[in-house]
Amino acid sequence: MTKNNDNRIILPEPTIRRLPWYLSYVRMLDNLHVEYVSSTQISKELNVQSSQIAKDLSFLNIRGKTRIGYEVRSLVSELEDFLGFNQHHDAVVIGTGSLGTALMQDHGLEHYGLNIVAGFDVRDEVIGQELGGVPVYAISELEPWMREHDVPIAILTVPVERAQEVADLAIASGVTALWNFTPYRIKAPESVVIANTSIYAHLAIIYNRMQGKTN
Amino acid sequence: MTKNNDNRIILPEPTIRRLPWYLSYVRMLDNLHVEYVSSTQISKELNVQSSQIAKDLSFLNIRGKTRIGYEVRSLVSELEDFLGFNQHHDAVVIGTGSLGTALMQDHGLEHYGLNIVAGFDVRDEVIGQELGGVPVYAISELEPWMREHDVPIAILTVPVERAQEVADLAIASGVTALWNFTPYRIKAPESVVIANTSIYAHLAIIYNRMQGKTN
Repeated sequence: MTKNNDNRIILPEPTIRRLPWYLSYVRMLDNLHVEYVSSTQISKELNVQSSQIAKDLSFLNIRGKTRIGYEVRSLVSELEDFLGFNQHHDAVVIGTGSLGTALMQDHGLEHYGLNIVAGFDVRDEVIGQELGGVPVYAISELEPWMREHDVPIAILTVPVERAQEVADLAIASGVTALWNFTPYRIKAPESVVIANTSIYAHLAIIYNRMQGKTN
Repeated sequence: MTKNNDNRIILPEPTIRRLPWYLSYVRMLDNLHVEYVSSTQISKELNVQSSQIAKDLSFLNIRGKTRIGYEVRSLVSELEDFLGFNQHHDAVVIGTGSLGTALMQDHGLEHYGLNIVAGFDVRDEVIGQELGGVPVYAISELEPWMREHDVPIAILTVPVERAQEVADLAIASGVTALWNFTPYRIKAPESVVIANTSIYAHLAIIYNRMQGKTN
């Protein structure tokens, strides 16, 4: 665990990956009006060691009570706060093909604090249109548009051979985080946050593990 | 590295995650008619240590030549073979909402060996329709349909609160791999391959890293 100079906690990635599992489980419990949950119960349900769960949750401002466990409602809101899902984070989608469009239409993302405010593309047939209620502009408009709208996140859903140049353009336009859906490994200054959602790498993992199990 | 009893190689996950980066880079070189590439060049381009690259590529049936490097065309086809992207892997999509539909319409996935042959849903307005040329059936049809079509992979793009029951149904229907796009941690027998593409976990990582850098 490291803290930056504002004392905000930079969590290890494996912990951040587990917290949304806990959240989706306790949200379901909350919907079922369950009031308390123990780390043992979460452990059984999610197949994570209960000592690991207690450690992960120790980063939050919440303590379990002996024999009763965690209050479900508080756990939901603490996890949402901590993960940033309760705040609005504006984002643009660059590349409004099928995946980009799906993200623009996926209102589920709003429940995770992501607010997609514009799309950018090179194709005349989508420029000037709306997708999922979000306007699409020409990519040549990105830099001037960003000067008027201070949007921190760019979602990259362009063809792989355009990934680096579009990333460079987004960074030059003032974006501070890139969510990269292409299989290309983008180079960027240290100050830029990059998250890679490597759909194709996951396919490779599935194929490789299937071979191991079935041949 | 472990081998199963058929001597097939089960690669460590970090290696499998890097191989598609190499592939997307050498595919671009191949499109530009570049004939040879060194691990040093790949290293600079992708920001991976060249010793790591040499080690990762040593799993493949290809050797670099001193001073010349790897033949680009051979590297492309060896990587595609090795990753399983050259073979057809049939899959069904369960949950044809915006993400499920995007995957059915994304012909990019075919270039990675994934062949989506059917979709399943509970909503009357999509059952009996086609999405991206792929037929959609009622989820109640999954088990009988699978008895006639031997499809190994199910892609789960259902709402999170349905994730486990749909996974159980897919496994009972004979699926051997689940590609889980929900934030729920699915429980399954050891013999079932599970890959989690946790879109929301990646959002949490972006938010957390942005806090660390900008506040």
